[in-house]
Amino acid sequence: MRTSGRSPTSHDVARLAGVSQPTVSRALRGKPGVSPETRRRVRDAADALGYVTSESARALATRRSLRVAVVASELANPFYVSLLGPLHDALADSGFRMILINGSDDASPDFDVLVDGSVDGVLLTTSQTTTALPQTLERHAVPFVFVNRVVDDIRADSCTVDNVGGIEAVAALLLKLGHRAFAGLFGPTTTSTSREREAALRDALAAGGIALRPEQSMHGDFTFSTGDTGFSQLMRAVDRPTAIVCGNDVIALGALNAANRLAIPVPSAVSIVGFDDIPMSSWDMFRLTTVRTDVNQLARTACRLLLRRIADPHAAFERAVVPAQLIERETHAAHLANR
Amino acid sequence: MRTSGRSPTSHDVARLAGVSQPTVSRALRGKPGVSPETRRRVRDAADALGYVTSESARALATRRSLRVAVVASELANPFYVSLLGPLHDALADSGFRMILINGSDDASPDFDVLVDGSVDGVLLTTSQTTTALPQTLERHAVPFVFVNRVVDDIRADSCTVDNVGGIEAVAALLLKLGHRAFAGLFGPTTTSTSREREAALRDALAAGGIALRPEQSMHGDFTFSTGDTGFSQLMRAVDRPTAIVCGNDVIALGALNAANRLAIPVPSAVSIVGFDDIPMSSWDMFRLTTVRTDVNQLARTACRLLLRRIADPHAAFERAVVPAQLIERETHAAHLANR
Repeated sequence: MRTSGRSPTSHDVARLAGVSQPTVSRALRGKPGVSPETRRRVRDAADALGYVTSESARALATRRSLRVAVVASELANPFYVSLLGPLHDALADSGFRMILINGSDDASPDFDVLVDGSVDGVLLTTSQTTTALPQTLERHAVPFVFVNRVVDDIRADSCTVDNVGGIEAVAALLLKLGHRAFAGLFGPTTTSTSREREAALRDALAAGGIALRPEQSMHGDFTFSTGDTGFSQLMRAVDRPTAIVCGNDVIALGALNAANRLAIPVPSAVSIVGFDDIPMSSWDMFRLTTVRTDVNQLARTACRLLLRRIADPHAAFERAVVPAQLIERETHAAHLANR
Repeated sequence: MRTSGRSPTSHDVARLAGVSQPTVSRALRGKPGVSPETRRRVRDAADALGYVTSESARALATRRSLRVAVVASELANPFYVSLLGPLHDALADSGFRMILINGSDDASPDFDVLVDGSVDGVLLTTSQTTTALPQTLERHAVPFVFVNRVVDDIRADSCTVDNVGGIEAVAALLLKLGHRAFAGLFGPTTTSTSREREAALRDALAAGGIALRPEQSMHGDFTFSTGDTGFSQLMRAVDRPTAIVCGNDVIALGALNAANRLAIPVPSAVSIVGFDDIPMSSWDMFRLTTVRTDVNQLARTACRLLLRRIADPHAAFERAVVPAQLIERETHAAHLANR
């Protein structure tokens, strides 16, 4: 959301959050006397409006480049592409320009620009848990925020979608529909998104009395071909799954493609569910049931975290989680026994 | 193609082009005594190997940033996304890093970085004919090259796919199959890609004795929804086309989606052809007949032109055209009367 005309004030935030202006001020400055719940509501309102505290604004005014780099190595993944516009707009609302670095390898000379003073901060969108880049940024005292992915051992701000909540909603839906034979087609085990989604599925099924066996959980890149190959393999097994939970939408579209080729009807023979709700997932030919990540909220939150980090390098680290929303389209159905 | 190990020499270029080393030297320095055909062959070989003349290399060595900006506003278009990797690698082979600017509006502060000394040159990939950015770059003496799109009134190097040759191949195929009722679903009239492809279709059909009437030629953004809406409209007409030529693959996929929704069989009732051959077009569920743009060759050629322009701001302007290749998949068929 671009704020039009004047910049939002703390009074706007107070109105939206339903609290007083002094409470907004205390909440955003991390002062005591504000409940965690209120603090969260104020932050959400500030994110929604693109509000920046005056201290932040002053500190920001002394920065040199007013430029932020977004690092994204997976531009073939439409999810990350769909995140670029919102990141660009959220940064622009705070007076920052965005440059995009798509180097994919840690030793890449592309990353020099991140530490040579050209940018005031960095948003890391596709980090693998094996990356050395965050340490490099830390060493050069370059403010950065993890967006969508986190790297556990690194003390840093991060902002992700609610992977656990999203997958719990998917599992609840499929269990309610009578499915008992599940499989998962996940992304690389070196990504937090894939790890969290897989663990959440395992836990949610276990709570329903169902174990996800190792051979029912496959991994590959976050690509169409992972879904295509994985689906074909699953369908060659003796005990075919009736419900397949995919690590992202692109994998799910690959699975739909294989189902189409193998003439296995979706959803009557097998339900397929994705994660992200990329634009393509709503196309008539797919109508994919999936979990929506609100890329605007993710972008605004990432931007708020980075601006705060730039303004105050010693602030406590924050791990923000944006809600996920189940989108029920047409690739899920009741298990045969339940019809 | 990344050259591995040592950098290519003029001898490598000579070997690949089948000429002597002095001829390579004369051809690339624009000296007389080399036929246009040989010059072209030498340039192609130099592009294929990523070879840079020693003068260029020397001139380049004195540059400050060793950074090139790629401007792309249409990142939702998979074609431009598929061009980024090859551009990145072609630049890296010459020791340049790439930054990506996705500002989409002429007055955008994102463009400041292009003229403030941060980059040595600019590749413009999604220019509309209405853009003011090229003039701004010219005024600041920033070397730039148009990639895939050109802007007619601007004196600049450019590098495009053979839009005319590609569409001629499509028209020849469809005419041979007996089609007489054509329609076109094109992109914005403010893009050279769309203009050239539309004009080429009109000319090729005229040569076959068929006029493309105005209402048979529709325009929109280079998006899925342009194809979806356009196809639906064409099918409501009294005289439905039996062959639809699309301005790019994304438009063609939108048309396939509408055909699927309307239960109009492709290709038995209508043939649909795209342009670009983006990765998705080869997916089983699409198997789109299209024209392939060799993004690697396009990227290498763009890079060669930019390096030459950086090394010699006064060199004659070159308009390079990369060959297009017809890819016959499964969305075209003979007209009913011809079966």
